[in-house]
Amino acid sequence: MTNRRSLPSLLAIALFASFAAAQDPLPSWNDGHSKQSIVQFVTDVTRQGGSKFVPVDQRIATFDNDGTLWVEQPIYTQFIFAIARVKALAPKHPEWKQQQPFKAVLDGDMKALGASGERGMVQIMMATHTGMTTDQFETNVKDWIRTAQHPRFHRPYTKCVYQPMLELLVYLRANRFKTYIVSGGGIEFMRAWAEQVYGIPPEQVIGSAIKTRFEMQNGAPVLLRLPEVDFVDDKAGKPVGIQKFIGRRPVAAFGNSDGDQQMLEWTAAGPGARLMLLVHHTDAVREYAYDRQSSIGTLNKALDEANAKGWVVVDMKRDWKTIFPR
Amino acid sequence: MTNRRSLPSLLAIALFASFAAAQDPLPSWNDGHSKQSIVQFVTDVTRQGGSKFVPVDQRIATFDNDGTLWVEQPIYTQFIFAIARVKALAPKHPEWKQQQPFKAVLDGDMKALGASGERGMVQIMMATHTGMTTDQFETNVKDWIRTAQHPRFHRPYTKCVYQPMLELLVYLRANRFKTYIVSGGGIEFMRAWAEQVYGIPPEQVIGSAIKTRFEMQNGAPVLLRLPEVDFVDDKAGKPVGIQKFIGRRPVAAFGNSDGDQQMLEWTAAGPGARLMLLVHHTDAVREYAYDRQSSIGTLNKALDEANAKGWVVVDMKRDWKTIFPR
Repeated sequence: MTNRRSLPSLLAIALFASFAAAQDPLPSWNDGHSKQSIVQFVTDVTRQGGSKFVPVDQRIATFDNDGTLWVEQPIYTQFIFAIARVKALAPKHPEWKQQQPFKAVLDGDMKALGASGERGMVQIMMATHTGMTTDQFETNVKDWIRTAQHPRFHRPYTKCVYQPMLELLVYLRANRFKTYIVSGGGIEFMRAWAEQVYGIPPEQVIGSAIKTRFEMQNGAPVLLRLPEVDFVDDKAGKPVGIQKFIGRRPVAAFGNSDGDQQMLEWTAAGPGARLMLLVHHTDAVREYAYDRQSSIGTLNKALDEANAKGWVVVDMKRDWKTIFPR
Repeated sequence: MTNRRSLPSLLAIALFASFAAAQDPLPSWNDGHSKQSIVQFVTDVTRQGGSKFVPVDQRIATFDNDGTLWVEQPIYTQFIFAIARVKALAPKHPEWKQQQPFKAVLDGDMKALGASGERGMVQIMMATHTGMTTDQFETNVKDWIRTAQHPRFHRPYTKCVYQPMLELLVYLRANRFKTYIVSGGGIEFMRAWAEQVYGIPPEQVIGSAIKTRFEMQNGAPVLLRLPEVDFVDDKAGKPVGIQKFIGRRPVAAFGNSDGDQQMLEWTAAGPGARLMLLVHHTDAVREYAYDRQSSIGTLNKALDEANAKGWVVVDMKRDWKTIFPR
């Protein structure tokens, strides 16, 4: 990287920008209403002097993560990580062999795990996500995600991201949008890999969080992760998180479930041109098909609102040429 | 603003950058150790191939606000705003004429106000900072700060900012640093004017916060400000806030009080080149002189640590040619 771009590199950027504009920015999207709506919106808000022009500093686009940018079935990836951590930590916790919900994880007893309910989930999350420094947690996530594979697709989770959405992120940034993740998932879990996978830096990742405490360990300052919820960035928490972290209302928002409904409502309520989009999982062959009845990524009320208000609903099976990157 | 920079404008930027580099980037700073330390640090971390080079994405610089970027004496500006709001809201609260601490504010009785202590301060802050939507609060702050004047300097508070620090912000950004505010002050109070005054956009302002709640009012979504503290971004809260909002450790941090000590410690503890700087208020003639004994902006333990560890301590009287912008 350079500290000040040289004139030749500026020329190269300008030339590449002209070249790129002549190409299809969304090659993995089939022609149709969804793609047209996206391209029309970006064209409108970037047309200087046009009635829908949006200044660069207000080009904020927010993306849900699970089910919008990457696969969330058969279960959230972060929970797979938590299960792997329980197994890794088990030798230090001999009591877990007799203690639910840890016993269920170690025995691979999914029925008992399910029976432990939300309380069991929270116990597993706290045992695996707190009690260490922020640096140590980041290392844990990076070490795991480097090798872990999706059980059905047999590829790394970081390759179970949606190619059409990667293109959309790049397309928006090329048009000087600032792209954010706004996810119910853990903020530090995502920050460990989001820059490499999505090109989204840590300061543009918003998510659910536990509290941390600044303290000295052996004369060096650390941030210790505490077993206490700080913020839940889901449903009505998403607009709250957006205002807290960004302080501006997005002009475009992308989701796939009822957890994103309030984020899209908040985005829609601003003045001027707006783009609200839901990814509808309709492709059981290439990915998964689920909506109103699914416990993971329930898409019910938000789908009704999208249909009523004319938000873009992506039909994954019809709209996407490919699902995953090569 | 343009949606894609034209080739001529890119050329103009490149030419201007070369021109600007030949000028003194910090004209309001007298030559001496403080200025030399800043320039040396920036030169080091931007020299490609140098041992102290820092990649652009890691060039995070965090600034305290009160007493570091603008005047904090005789009392925090945000509290002056709160007092003005009590007076503005008094007609709707006839009971305040008999009820402390509001009676003290309305009577101009500073002794009684002081006697109400921290509890009284919190009551005033909650009464004036919560119970409205985020949009309404932003309007309140913008309306007030447009005309309010500092009692001693008889100029708007937004002109009671330090010219040498404005130059430092511009200098760092010209060298591709991302500049953040990390303040004990209210995040939404600062966001209402920080972009115009400091060139720092809302998403790079971190501060103390109350909770908000997403709800529908007359069919439109709003965020309602609640009388409940969400986060205190002071002392050990500053590294917590930095990790929460930015997710990266700064390489440079600027403060003026013990409230900034942990932020500077957290910054200092990272690897590679680092710049830690404290503004020491030593100029009773042009601004104020205060440190260890002051109740506002106490600089005591942090000054000892700065002296022990060789952090830069700016002597306002000696180091700054001018204090305020013209």
